[in-house]
Amino acid sequence: MKAHLITIGDEILIGQIIDSNSAYIAKKLNEIGLEVEEILSIPDDKDFIRNTLHYSLNKADVVITTGGLGPTKDDVTKNALCEFLETELVVDEMILAELEDRYQKLNRPMNDLNRAQALVPKGSIALKNPLGTAPGLLTETNGKLLFNLQGVPFEMKNLINTEVIPRLQQKFDFPFVVHRFLSVSDYPESDLAIALSDWEGNLPADFHFAYLPERSKVKLRISVKGNNKSELDKRIQLEVDKLIPIIGSRLDSTTNDLVQQILGEKLKELGMSIATAESCTGGAIAQMLTNVPGSSNYFMGSVVSYATEAKENVLNVSNELIEKYTVVSKEVALAMARGVRELLKTQIAVSTTGVAGPAKGEDGKEVGTVWIAVTDGKNTMAKMYFFPYLEREDFIQQVSKLALQNALQFLNQFH
Amino acid sequence: MKAHLITIGDEILIGQIIDSNSAYIAKKLNEIGLEVEEILSIPDDKDFIRNTLHYSLNKADVVITTGGLGPTKDDVTKNALCEFLETELVVDEMILAELEDRYQKLNRPMNDLNRAQALVPKGSIALKNPLGTAPGLLTETNGKLLFNLQGVPFEMKNLINTEVIPRLQQKFDFPFVVHRFLSVSDYPESDLAIALSDWEGNLPADFHFAYLPERSKVKLRISVKGNNKSELDKRIQLEVDKLIPIIGSRLDSTTNDLVQQILGEKLKELGMSIATAESCTGGAIAQMLTNVPGSSNYFMGSVVSYATEAKENVLNVSNELIEKYTVVSKEVALAMARGVRELLKTQIAVSTTGVAGPAKGEDGKEVGTVWIAVTDGKNTMAKMYFFPYLEREDFIQQVSKLALQNALQFLNQFH
Repeated sequence: MKAHLITIGDEILIGQIIDSNSAYIAKKLNEIGLEVEEILSIPDDKDFIRNTLHYSLNKADVVITTGGLGPTKDDVTKNALCEFLETELVVDEMILAELEDRYQKLNRPMNDLNRAQALVPKGSIALKNPLGTAPGLLTETNGKLLFNLQGVPFEMKNLINTEVIPRLQQKFDFPFVVHRFLSVSDYPESDLAIALSDWEGNLPADFHFAYLPERSKVKLRISVKGNNKSELDKRIQLEVDKLIPIIGSRLDSTTNDLVQQILGEKLKELGMSIATAESCTGGAIAQMLTNVPGSSNYFMGSVVSYATEAKENVLNVSNELIEKYTVVSKEVALAMARGVRELLKTQIAVSTTGVAGPAKGEDGKEVGTVWIAVTDGKNTMAKMYFFPYLEREDFIQQVSKLALQNALQFLNQFH
Repeated sequence: MKAHLITIGDEILIGQIIDSNSAYIAKKLNEIGLEVEEILSIPDDKDFIRNTLHYSLNKADVVITTGGLGPTKDDVTKNALCEFLETELVVDEMILAELEDRYQKLNRPMNDLNRAQALVPKGSIALKNPLGTAPGLLTETNGKLLFNLQGVPFEMKNLINTEVIPRLQQKFDFPFVVHRFLSVSDYPESDLAIALSDWEGNLPADFHFAYLPERSKVKLRISVKGNNKSELDKRIQLEVDKLIPIIGSRLDSTTNDLVQQILGEKLKELGMSIATAESCTGGAIAQMLTNVPGSSNYFMGSVVSYATEAKENVLNVSNELIEKYTVVSKEVALAMARGVRELLKTQIAVSTTGVAGPAKGEDGKEVGTVWIAVTDGKNTMAKMYFFPYLEREDFIQQVSKLALQNALQFLNQFH
């Protein structure tokens, strides 16, 4: 069984927004064993939508569209759907009653466009969307399921979890898809591929193996599909066990966890707390740590000392040190880490100071230069990196990831 | 003229990563007047790639693929391309010489997989990729251009800017595509659509108008295409001028700038500086501010007081206040804003304190509750919001945006 995802909306085709909806849906479907074979992004155009529905419902068993369900003229998904199904829009009385009730409670008049939200193609089922005014739609055609969902992410996510996944699981019997992820550092992809080639050559025929290179890292993915979950888990573990000694010490992790999750687990295990002092990363490290549920157990806080005065006044970095070594230096990075550790009374602290660009640093430091430091009050670690070709936001993300990786390495080395 | 983008890689189809490459490329092509008609994400599968190349090169004049150019077995784009072009891989001697030179300088042995990176389909042009080992590819077929680029974002971005855009502009004469964006707050989309319906009905036939609803906001987009840029600018301005009085005071902005950019401009205009004190947003507001180039001119820094002790020790929020009103309260939000303003010596400060979930707050506060406060030392503004249904990361993003919107509203009201 295969699924197709179709995102409808010119805003994606002109690059106004990033299509994060598809990744969310793909992940959720994958978790229940339904594979996504193709994702298509197409314009708000009736003919285009109709043709794409033909294409996708011909190739896939489940098709999910997002977008184009709003009340305005540029939203044409419902009309395209009627043309495709050769049917017409009819009022769903239950949806209309609910809408009227909601507007009454809000004490807002209901206009024709609001009322039109209760129109659904004859034969389609309206899926309740308590977070918006338009319902989602479900249509069964030739034994295949077509879902039409909202483009607004929080409405779409709610419908996926409350309507789409339960209905799919009720109707179909999916196999299990098991993935295992390994993360390898400082191992050039081609050298790694040669080291793993015998192992890869001996993989069972139903296994799938893939490399995803990132900067200074390679993620490996082993996948297998079947009906017996515990057997799949056992078989995949067998292969992972063979793989681990071949990769050796450059293996970072045997999960798909992000570095902030791995670091968080390690801190909890050690019963330690962390703080960050951020200059060029501007809060991005703190944000990564905060995104992990339960991080309040070990993450005490951060000082984003974007201005030099903040480094002096809050983090207690002396003016003399800055004058002597410049803001982007090993000495200042270490002083920042020490400063925030004392201020927030944590066991360890990590700091960044660098030039994100596009303009050079005040002291003439080249764009892309950064120092990262870690301290536990006794031991210290400080490293310099240089990423002259990264765009500003990418630089910030890259340095933030590295800061967390260094903190993890520091804990592995000293604790 | 139309372009198609094809992203190749199972990692997108299983939701392992979000396809941010397509949005980057779409935006860059749009800026030079080349419209993207369709974006397709497909598996690392030779037949699938070949079929999709047929489809896209049949419909579009320019096709750009990303992904599948690596040295490992799961990367099959080059082989699929050879099958599609009915040709074979040959060594590009110049690329090979450069690779050999690079490996020699790195003092690293070159293996067969590294050497294979210099193989290109006969008749294709290798595009120099100084940030990676595999070159990009350009193939001209039936007067159409096919680019094959890397999936790794920083390599792809560099190739787009140094190779793809210049070559496209050299070969073709593109029309101009002009977009104007307006952002409207607290105006239900359907009410807005009714208010604008006469204006929309009278738009010139070659104009395109679209609504993009977000939470408590609607983005409007007016687009027009043509050969005379200044005439297009004039015509679009004429329509915007008519639109502004119809929308009235709920118009936030007449650009596509993010709220952090608009706030930054406003602060520069007023010669004022800002600091943030963040609890539940955990540094996300600071990060949004920092992402704007030049933000060091007005953004002094942030205290991420994730733990209650950090609120007391660093921000000087009294323990009595917290005991009396609880951490998630108007009083504590205001005290945090005052505290960070004094600490970082800025004109204004904004703060957040709330429960991002998934677990309730220590004081039993419901997940999704948040207070946002702004102060300039004299005037204050504090608001409570409740987003019980947002997932943790979405909650953090939403609250951060609102914090910046409130800071902007505060400046508009008091300065």
